[in-house]
Amino acid sequence: MQSIERAAAILRLLGGGSRHLPLGEIAHSLDLAKGTTHGILRTLQHVGFVEQDRVSGHYQLGAGLVRPGAGYLDPNELRSHAINWADPLAARTGEAVRVGTVLDGRVLVVHHVFRPDDTFQTLDVGTLLPIHATALGKVLLAYRSAGVAPPADLDRFTRRTVRTPHGLAAEVVRVRDAGWGYEVEEMTPGNASVAAPIRGPGGLVVGAVGTSGLVERICDRRYHPHPHLVALVRETARAISRELGDGRH
Amino acid sequence: MQSIERAAAILRLLGGGSRHLPLGEIAHSLDLAKGTTHGILRTLQHVGFVEQDRVSGHYQLGAGLVRPGAGYLDPNELRSHAINWADPLAARTGEAVRVGTVLDGRVLVVHHVFRPDDTFQTLDVGTLLPIHATALGKVLLAYRSAGVAPPADLDRFTRRTVRTPHGLAAEVVRVRDAGWGYEVEEMTPGNASVAAPIRGPGGLVVGAVGTSGLVERICDRRYHPHPHLVALVRETARAISRELGDGRH
Repeated sequence: MQSIERAAAILRLLGGGSRHLPLGEIAHSLDLAKGTTHGILRTLQHVGFVEQDRVSGHYQLGAGLVRPGAGYLDPNELRSHAINWADPLAARTGEAVRVGTVLDGRVLVVHHVFRPDDTFQTLDVGTLLPIHATALGKVLLAYRSAGVAPPADLDRFTRRTVRTPHGLAAEVVRVRDAGWGYEVEEMTPGNASVAAPIRGPGGLVVGAVGTSGLVERICDRRYHPHPHLVALVRETARAISRELGDGRH
Repeated sequence: MQSIERAAAILRLLGGGSRHLPLGEIAHSLDLAKGTTHGILRTLQHVGFVEQDRVSGHYQLGAGLVRPGAGYLDPNELRSHAINWADPLAARTGEAVRVGTVLDGRVLVVHHVFRPDDTFQTLDVGTLLPIHATALGKVLLAYRSAGVAPPADLDRFTRRTVRTPHGLAAEVVRVRDAGWGYEVEEMTPGNASVAAPIRGPGGLVVGAVGTSGLVERICDRRYHPHPHLVALVRETARAISRELGDGRH
């Protein structure tokens, strides 16, 4: 825990009167070796708590510290890391793939790979999907990604849409227990989807990746997603998490 | 650096929509073991970045994160830890001892032990001393304690008072190189003082402790503080730092 204390001391120092400090002065003020200090500063930069001025090389507090919800991972960065993994997932499952993150309490689709067949499909990058009626949304809600809370209004899309706070709370528990989420005809009749969390540094959930398609292709006869499909989605989520710096996967 | 990333993830989570979260939910959201999460939370509490609600036991962001200058170590806490060490220092040096911290760009005296003789002395706990003319002040300035900056006006107290920004900058360099500071007749004719930094968790300088007295008792013939006096002051500063959680001393 010493490294946390040192990181906190650096943040305190930068949060004091003089907001721009060079490496040497930070190290000297805290009586730390330059190498140690540089390592901590790089980690703090990585999580968005510290920024380095390009011209002077001095360090200052980052947007993520001033406003914890901000500056963590912009949708473009999530997309750029997800792209390499979304295509193979679509190829291996034969279904459409979407990557989403939270924006204003809904799921912002930041990447969409068409189902690999010749049917007509519409690109829905930039679309906002409901939290409570999508697998992506349930996963983002379960891990409180970007502080998302259960929506006040649970709009009904089909007769299977979760429509009570109690029902949604039960879904959240299910996602947490399983580590992934799904929905069957809760958004669109005849469709089902499966999703898993994408984690950034420290394990924070910064997005979700999922696949969706016809119920009879996604699910078995008991309306449970096929285990091999779930495994592929989770594997993809872990691969993207690794790229984003989640150390454990 | 993984623990810093995890700590940052916890702060991000608490900075999101739901500001009060129980331990289990934090652990689950970040996919961390409860024990690991608890250890990080305790460290974050220790540095003032997280607070725990006494009734619910839930965690929330602490004042130190919202305003990096705040909530770190209140003067009462510094005093309560310094008291045990200030008395022995006065006894061993035979001189007055003061403990100071930064307040509004000056040195706030939070503890004062009289010189152990029968002379009349005035308690100056609560007094604000100038940064540039005291050993306590020079030390606090050198390590940028609480963001203190060089004062704009360098008031002249004696003919030896440092009166130029350049002169003060040189003093700062000297303190950093030596690890302690002093002044000779810069505040009061016939008086000299020696001080060393008190460090909190992570090495952040949260205060200074020093001794002062007649020049002929504090200094040798070349107006340098006696090495044994300097050693006693530094030893005291390290002892208080240890109590405050600076792991290295």
